[in-house]
Amino acid sequence: MTYTLVLLRHGESEWNAKNLFTGWVDVALSEKGVEEAKRGGKLLVDEGVLPDVVHTSLLRRAITTANLALDAADRHWIPVRRSWRLNERHYGALQGKDKKQTLEEYGEEQFMLWRRSYDVPPPPIEPGSAFSQDSDPRYAGEPIPSAEALEQVLERVVPYWESDLVPDLKSGKKVLVAAHGNSIRAIVKFLDDVDDKTIAGINIPTGIPLVYELDEETLKPTNPGGTYLDPAAAADAIKAVANQGR
Amino acid sequence: MTYTLVLLRHGESEWNAKNLFTGWVDVALSEKGVEEAKRGGKLLVDEGVLPDVVHTSLLRRAITTANLALDAADRHWIPVRRSWRLNERHYGALQGKDKKQTLEEYGEEQFMLWRRSYDVPPPPIEPGSAFSQDSDPRYAGEPIPSAEALEQVLERVVPYWESDLVPDLKSGKKVLVAAHGNSIRAIVKFLDDVDDKTIAGINIPTGIPLVYELDEETLKPTNPGGTYLDPAAAADAIKAVANQGR
Repeated sequence: MTYTLVLLRHGESEWNAKNLFTGWVDVALSEKGVEEAKRGGKLLVDEGVLPDVVHTSLLRRAITTANLALDAADRHWIPVRRSWRLNERHYGALQGKDKKQTLEEYGEEQFMLWRRSYDVPPPPIEPGSAFSQDSDPRYAGEPIPSAEALEQVLERVVPYWESDLVPDLKSGKKVLVAAHGNSIRAIVKFLDDVDDKTIAGINIPTGIPLVYELDEETLKPTNPGGTYLDPAAAADAIKAVANQGR
Repeated sequence: MTYTLVLLRHGESEWNAKNLFTGWVDVALSEKGVEEAKRGGKLLVDEGVLPDVVHTSLLRRAITTANLALDAADRHWIPVRRSWRLNERHYGALQGKDKKQTLEEYGEEQFMLWRRSYDVPPPPIEPGSAFSQDSDPRYAGEPIPSAEALEQVLERVVPYWESDLVPDLKSGKKVLVAAHGNSIRAIVKFLDDVDDKTIAGINIPTGIPLVYELDEETLKPTNPGGTYLDPAAAADAIKAVANQGR
């Protein structure tokens, strides 16, 4: 027997479309993102992967994606859990900045370190600045970061995996996680034991469910790398993500 | 000190618009209903009533209303609880029937007994019939009804009040309940000690938050009858509900 985990990156957001660093800034889905989310839900139905519980970040683009996908899959009524630990990587002082301008200003090497290195965080965000979250009530009392590399995302996602996702999986529920490029990369790195260099080349497409079957003893994937419900579309989308900022 | 409870009846559904008995049939909001839900969320912001937790039924029209209202209020990230105990009254064999035709077929007296008597349920729904829920996975293992009068709605709502709503209220959270005409009437009857005859004349408008302030000792309203966030619109809408089926 295996447990089923479904990872779903939110559809295109208004800032994906504008090519801005988003991080924890709480932007909405674009119209394209809305359609991607609905299509993600239809893929769940078509492939017979019907979640019993959903976990989301605290960000609108993941929450709306979950709402729309579950509605399209007729699973809008399942229990919902939310945590900031599933949020996108905090992009620090880069939040709100244009990706192309940042590339030109800091050069290819620094840009790619910030985007894809495992352990080099961007500069921290100034408290009280326009795109800071320090007075946001949803994070009150939580140990929230001021900038993160993927390493720091893992450090806050893995405790949530242990405390909240594993118990739902072990109860036999099919678990949907509606989250972000980097929180999903953190889960993928952890599940597949991806090394710190290789993870830099792994991109997650938006709106295409990625299904892991987990061994009931080890909770390790019996299908390493997972299975996209639309493999051809996933392959195309992964190429597009890799070219962002160019 | 008081605790704050906000009751929100879902916006117009596709079947409200068609004048059909809906009950537990899981229809979507109409376009008007979508706008009502968003406006309900804006009223929460305008009046500074920001929920800390939301409870919904298991029906799409209440769930979508909660999603849209909370998104409009920038509270999409709050915890979510769901229960069939907040569902609309089960309309038994009337589910899917036209209200006007039913009025003509059975006459004014029987029609009004089914619609508004406290304790006369409609005929039970046939198991396996088109609008029955007996094979719906969301109710698996639950003691679901085959027809309800308002009395039976109270009998399943009040245990949820005690087990789930009271603990959230007592923790100091502002609690939003996104539900239905009759599950909200049941809560109103219980909170305001409305007698079995008077409740027949109380109608709940769609999409307008109804706020109760509850005494911290007795959990009884300090504002009996509650306060609609848009009293003029509520008064107009209540008249329209009372005239349904005419």
